[in-house]
Amino acid sequence: MSDKLTGGGEFDFIERVRRRELARVPDNRHSSLITHHSSLLKGIGDDAALLRPRAGFDLVITADLLVEGVDFRLDKGWTTPRDLGHKALAVSLSDAAAMGAWPCFCLLSVGVPRALWRGRFLEEFYEGVRALADVYGVRIIGGDTSRTTGGFVVDSVVIGEVRRGRALTRGGAAAGEQIFVTGSLGGAAAGLKMLEGGRARASRGLLARQRRPEPRVEWGALLSEKGLATSLIDLSDGLSSDLMHVCRESGVGARVEAASLPLDPLLAQTNVGADEALRLALDGGEDFELLFTASTRQAARLPREVGGVPFTRVGEVTAERGKVRLVRDGRASLLKPGGFEHFRRDS
Amino acid sequence: MSDKLTGGGEFDFIERVRRRELARVPDNRHSSLITHHSSLLKGIGDDAALLRPRAGFDLVITADLLVEGVDFRLDKGWTTPRDLGHKALAVSLSDAAAMGAWPCFCLLSVGVPRALWRGRFLEEFYEGVRALADVYGVRIIGGDTSRTTGGFVVDSVVIGEVRRGRALTRGGAAAGEQIFVTGSLGGAAAGLKMLEGGRARASRGLLARQRRPEPRVEWGALLSEKGLATSLIDLSDGLSSDLMHVCRESGVGARVEAASLPLDPLLAQTNVGADEALRLALDGGEDFELLFTASTRQAARLPREVGGVPFTRVGEVTAERGKVRLVRDGRASLLKPGGFEHFRRDS
Repeated sequence: MSDKLTGGGEFDFIERVRRRELARVPDNRHSSLITHHSSLLKGIGDDAALLRPRAGFDLVITADLLVEGVDFRLDKGWTTPRDLGHKALAVSLSDAAAMGAWPCFCLLSVGVPRALWRGRFLEEFYEGVRALADVYGVRIIGGDTSRTTGGFVVDSVVIGEVRRGRALTRGGAAAGEQIFVTGSLGGAAAGLKMLEGGRARASRGLLARQRRPEPRVEWGALLSEKGLATSLIDLSDGLSSDLMHVCRESGVGARVEAASLPLDPLLAQTNVGADEALRLALDGGEDFELLFTASTRQAARLPREVGGVPFTRVGEVTAERGKVRLVRDGRASLLKPGGFEHFRRDS
Repeated sequence: MSDKLTGGGEFDFIERVRRRELARVPDNRHSSLITHHSSLLKGIGDDAALLRPRAGFDLVITADLLVEGVDFRLDKGWTTPRDLGHKALAVSLSDAAAMGAWPCFCLLSVGVPRALWRGRFLEEFYEGVRALADVYGVRIIGGDTSRTTGGFVVDSVVIGEVRRGRALTRGGAAAGEQIFVTGSLGGAAAGLKMLEGGRARASRGLLARQRRPEPRVEWGALLSEKGLATSLIDLSDGLSSDLMHVCRESGVGARVEAASLPLDPLLAQTNVGADEALRLALDGGEDFELLFTASTRQAARLPREVGGVPFTRVGEVTAERGKVRLVRDGRASLLKPGGFEHFRRDS
């Protein structure tokens, strides 16, 4: 790790982060669920962070790159620096959760355009990261800072831990199992639509789903800790794409009941029609809910909700390898990744 | 991890990397030195990579962000995609080496401008990464891909392992110890000067020092494995800055002998004068050599060279906390980070 801005004296984001991390009091909100944590021997301030992995645990690591103008916009009130910090961390926490791992550490690399150096942007961005990190006891242990001649970019790297051999991948589903999703679907994509459409009828709730996704960390950790799922993925691209990943990696197929999909209740307060709501839920992406498969026996042991977030059965795993079918009004059609086609009224 | 370009079908860099990684035959060139490696349970292709850390080893992790137009240029033949891939990985390998760790895994997040999507750029960039990774048996286990509306950006994350409790930080130096550097100094900065000056008198060797730095992985691993150093850092910012980091973290001072600095021998073939050569060696940066401190007893056990790279004693640790002094022609002056001032002839 090096901070190429330090030498020039313009600012030293990572150094400021370091001081605050040292001063921070750990958050123990989730200590009842997860009491294990690898030791941090050295955080920000050396050539690299130094960890002592806890015996009996595997580690997961994931990186998510967000680029201004592509993955988010800072103009026209699309998001705030604080919400962007939240989202940058949230998407990586979601990836860790999607392995059944508890997130422990984060490295943030930020590329900062000149216009954002001196203002409050980075402070507020960091506060957004920090607030979410505190919820799960995640420590910021490194990263890098550079200028950019283009827009703001952030690469968010999260390391999580999961009890040895308990990680859940996309590859464990078997025919006959049931398919579940946490929370609700379509809200983030509806929020994005509102932003793209100039927010004439913006719902604050749906905008928040887009701007401040809540990773399902507790759900992921519980599924792996208690052995309640056979496969697990997070819904970042949309159910139609992400379920296909599970089918391909597991060598199975799936059948999804349209009527059972847990549409975001806020969609009902908008002028989004039934077809469009279904499309948003299937193809919209960025809900960052978890999708998992479970045997009947596992399903019977699922808690009604975790941290206030319920789950819904949306379909079943089939032996029809690589095929996802959507059943609506008693008729089944092939569902392609990101390719939900509007049903005609008469079909 | 998600590949936001996959959906659009434009390209899928990480997926291509995945296929090649699966097909790759591990390189065992260094197996005589390092036989330990954490297990990779799942690489590219799930929500996160999954590792099983090897018992008895600590892990280091580091991130380095390189931004086009700031950290490198692609125009005017400054570098090639292949050399850029090499350097992106090299800088992070160097950070791992600077903890005494052997690099094992890498995640690469790349932001790619539209103009570079379709050509050979990413292929060649990856080949550069891959060739260096092969030298040390590093596996590419994840990352992310996005478009950018600006230039090319890459965040290179490296995970390394070091025998438990053997990691070397910046904080272990004690007064009376000796200071050493590996290899030679000033070459990378001289290469940069040539690029900036239009390469009228470019030395291929100095350009290579700038474009394709060689991380001192074997040296770092040996120093920690054999317990031959008390502190360790890599020379990324320049000796004057990096030695100050060691002094601050260790609560010591240092005295450096100008005459003992191992100037890059290629500097003698240029029109760079003695003052300028000294300045490049002290402040130039990007040599990615290692600087370490060792007791007399440790120093006596140092091998003459490691992998063809020798070391040089450049000074000693003093009790003058936070002060680095440069001795030249029998006169000592205070050396500030990045702030070497030309000596006047009569001083």
